[in-house]
Amino acid sequence: MKQYPEYLEELIEFLKIPSISTLPAHKNDMRQAADWVAERVRMAGIETVELHTVDNGHPLVYAARIDDTANPTVLLYGHYDVQPVDPLGEWHSPPFSPLVKDGKIFARGASDDKGQFAAHLFALRELSKKWGDKKWPVNVKLIIEGEEEAGGVSIEKWASENPKKLAADFVLISDTAFIRQDVPSIDYGLRGIAYMELEVAGPVRDLHSGVYGGGIVNPLSALAHILDKLLDLDSGRVRIPGFYDSVVEITEKDRRYAAEVPFDKADFLARAGVKEDWGETGYTTYERITSRPSLDINGIYGGFQGEGAKTVLPRRAGAKISMRLVPEQEPDIILKQTTEYVKKIAPKGVDISCKPVYLAKGVLLDTESPYFEAAGIAMEEVFGRRPVFTRSGASIPVANVFNSILGLDIIFMGLGLPDDGLHSPNEKFETTQFYKGIEAVIKFLEKVGQMS
Amino acid sequence: MKQYPEYLEELIEFLKIPSISTLPAHKNDMRQAADWVAERVRMAGIETVELHTVDNGHPLVYAARIDDTANPTVLLYGHYDVQPVDPLGEWHSPPFSPLVKDGKIFARGASDDKGQFAAHLFALRELSKKWGDKKWPVNVKLIIEGEEEAGGVSIEKWASENPKKLAADFVLISDTAFIRQDVPSIDYGLRGIAYMELEVAGPVRDLHSGVYGGGIVNPLSALAHILDKLLDLDSGRVRIPGFYDSVVEITEKDRRYAAEVPFDKADFLARAGVKEDWGETGYTTYERITSRPSLDINGIYGGFQGEGAKTVLPRRAGAKISMRLVPEQEPDIILKQTTEYVKKIAPKGVDISCKPVYLAKGVLLDTESPYFEAAGIAMEEVFGRRPVFTRSGASIPVANVFNSILGLDIIFMGLGLPDDGLHSPNEKFETTQFYKGIEAVIKFLEKVGQMS
Repeated sequence: MKQYPEYLEELIEFLKIPSISTLPAHKNDMRQAADWVAERVRMAGIETVELHTVDNGHPLVYAARIDDTANPTVLLYGHYDVQPVDPLGEWHSPPFSPLVKDGKIFARGASDDKGQFAAHLFALRELSKKWGDKKWPVNVKLIIEGEEEAGGVSIEKWASENPKKLAADFVLISDTAFIRQDVPSIDYGLRGIAYMELEVAGPVRDLHSGVYGGGIVNPLSALAHILDKLLDLDSGRVRIPGFYDSVVEITEKDRRYAAEVPFDKADFLARAGVKEDWGETGYTTYERITSRPSLDINGIYGGFQGEGAKTVLPRRAGAKISMRLVPEQEPDIILKQTTEYVKKIAPKGVDISCKPVYLAKGVLLDTESPYFEAAGIAMEEVFGRRPVFTRSGASIPVANVFNSILGLDIIFMGLGLPDDGLHSPNEKFETTQFYKGIEAVIKFLEKVGQMS
Repeated sequence: MKQYPEYLEELIEFLKIPSISTLPAHKNDMRQAADWVAERVRMAGIETVELHTVDNGHPLVYAARIDDTANPTVLLYGHYDVQPVDPLGEWHSPPFSPLVKDGKIFARGASDDKGQFAAHLFALRELSKKWGDKKWPVNVKLIIEGEEEAGGVSIEKWASENPKKLAADFVLISDTAFIRQDVPSIDYGLRGIAYMELEVAGPVRDLHSGVYGGGIVNPLSALAHILDKLLDLDSGRVRIPGFYDSVVEITEKDRRYAAEVPFDKADFLARAGVKEDWGETGYTTYERITSRPSLDINGIYGGFQGEGAKTVLPRRAGAKISMRLVPEQEPDIILKQTTEYVKKIAPKGVDISCKPVYLAKGVLLDTESPYFEAAGIAMEEVFGRRPVFTRSGASIPVANVFNSILGLDIIFMGLGLPDDGLHSPNEKFETTQFYKGIEAVIKFLEKVGQMS
């Protein structure tokens, strides 16, 4: 395996930037991360790099090098923003002080998506050395955003307004994972998402529960009641009326691909640290987490949370709720159905507010394209095994923009592993995946160049 | 009305001490508040003051002056600790920088219980001036604790071990409220409490909800399910099996007293800032909040609570739950029933922990005693109206120790008003209640002295 220690050093610098897109305090860090990306694009032989800002959002990094319009054009996508780090106390090393140990790089964003996207960028730099001053056999565009973990509002707006700048034969996206370390995978589907915040407001101020308890409805009880009615824990089904209306049953093709996927339930449960699985009856665990919609409460708050006790009847309570959707489900319809249902089941005496946090439609790709074929061969050459076709349960909001809105094909050449701990404490990325990932992208784009 | 501006100044100094008993960071403030109380007891002519500490808890202030064992003995009780102050942002002036405005003293603890107890203490100082060097007609004992808002563990233990030191004809307790500003009230009943913390543990770490969502049970959904099953929002009934087994129905005497209580439902709702009441069907609002048990969720936590979004499936979630009990209900039995029920209704795949935070039995007093009579006349002389007999929905953990364990009669000569905002931001105490309260206690103890 060819190693690229100098690129590992550069990645470590990238990982030191705390580019948390959802926290306003990191506004400057976001700009610094965007500048880091822009500089690396220039170092890959693409001199004209543009930073675009939409509605005071985080900068989009755009670049293009079109040497011959007759050649195929690839659009590289990645994101330089990362998730928040809490609970901070559970990290073994500080999230923004990258630690390389036992072939792993520990840092927030190591796998999602800085490490993966950097592998794609460094592959481009290697290719620029090979191709040198000659006409490149592949036209290259890049669009790198800083709001993937925050709903991707800027890229969605900018992409809709600049479809020509993004015109390409296909988009190359990192930010997905192998099904197992020894089984490379290419995703052909992603779930969509409808993320919302529910607030329940009751009394005008926090009250003494001895004085008011039993006499007025408690917003926390109302919240628990509503949340309990969203999901049937016995059947694993979402209880929102109409939620499943547009859901297409799992197809024969899905089942054929799934049969080749070495999904290991015991391993899945061990990674989560739970004894038993749970979910919608009638489906396998792999189907539940990839090809069926789900609902999770992501956070809950209200009343006294400190040490000890406080006998308070709180004035408000709330929850963050997200639904993972199959590609057929329209997030805005789901949001509307949920809002109507929540307001209907809420007890009297409280005021309900449902605010969308972000919405993204899922995608389902054509697995017959020549790019899928070339990607599969490139990965087989580097990783020693032909990739399986997988569906991912996660969401990449921009994938729907590229696919449904701009009509672009997508190749998900993700380099993560299932135990990378995305969004969790002690997120990591394997150096082997980093080095081999660089190789695989080089080989893939060389094959694409031969298609012209 | 006689005013005592010098005592108001002293009270303000008392209110500046942030004596929050449940927060370990305030340990030294607790000691400072205890010292303040001890010094004021000495200034009231009782020279021997003892500070007792049980199991590293907050100091108990004990004092006694027995001039003639043939005379009646009163035991004054109060507490120098206060509730936490969050949400701090909702205070109009800092909670420990007392503000006197429009006849109100705004500060944490102004009414609960520093202002009320200080009125009793200052009444004693006035009496000590009147009685001077002569033999006092009433023997006086004081027991002032610093854990009333934290379960009262120290006083409960110390009282059980030192019953003789607390022997008295009756206990005089502040820390209750008038039913309305123009209607003085004497409580003859208090609700008990069972306060517990419920924790639901699931995966070994926080997980990505896209990768795991729909495949393992979410601790937040499990928590919502359990909490929703504790209370029937339609009937207002607690759903824990056996919860009502020992509850005695409201008696004829209760109804006779209640008929004289000018409980104003519209005013109650206006103070809470809600449009409609809620609670157990078949009972009036006044009955629900004073003579019937209730259940409230006091706080809830789990997952991401920050600004924006995080797609996390959290490893744990929890809630603080308290049940207000009628005097017949045994808190430890209720706790056991609740724990069994919660474990039974919890979905598979999560671990449940129920920890008691504190327990206290309610009290129901004999309203025929001569001290009740004397207290009523004293209050009528000062406030211009004979008090009504009320039951309070709140709990004073130590009241059960005095009443059931030590066999002492209790007179609740509380000086609070219903809109004082106990446990809430902008807690206040009326200066009129403070000044008249001093007068009422003076007159009451003078009458007690004439009983000898």
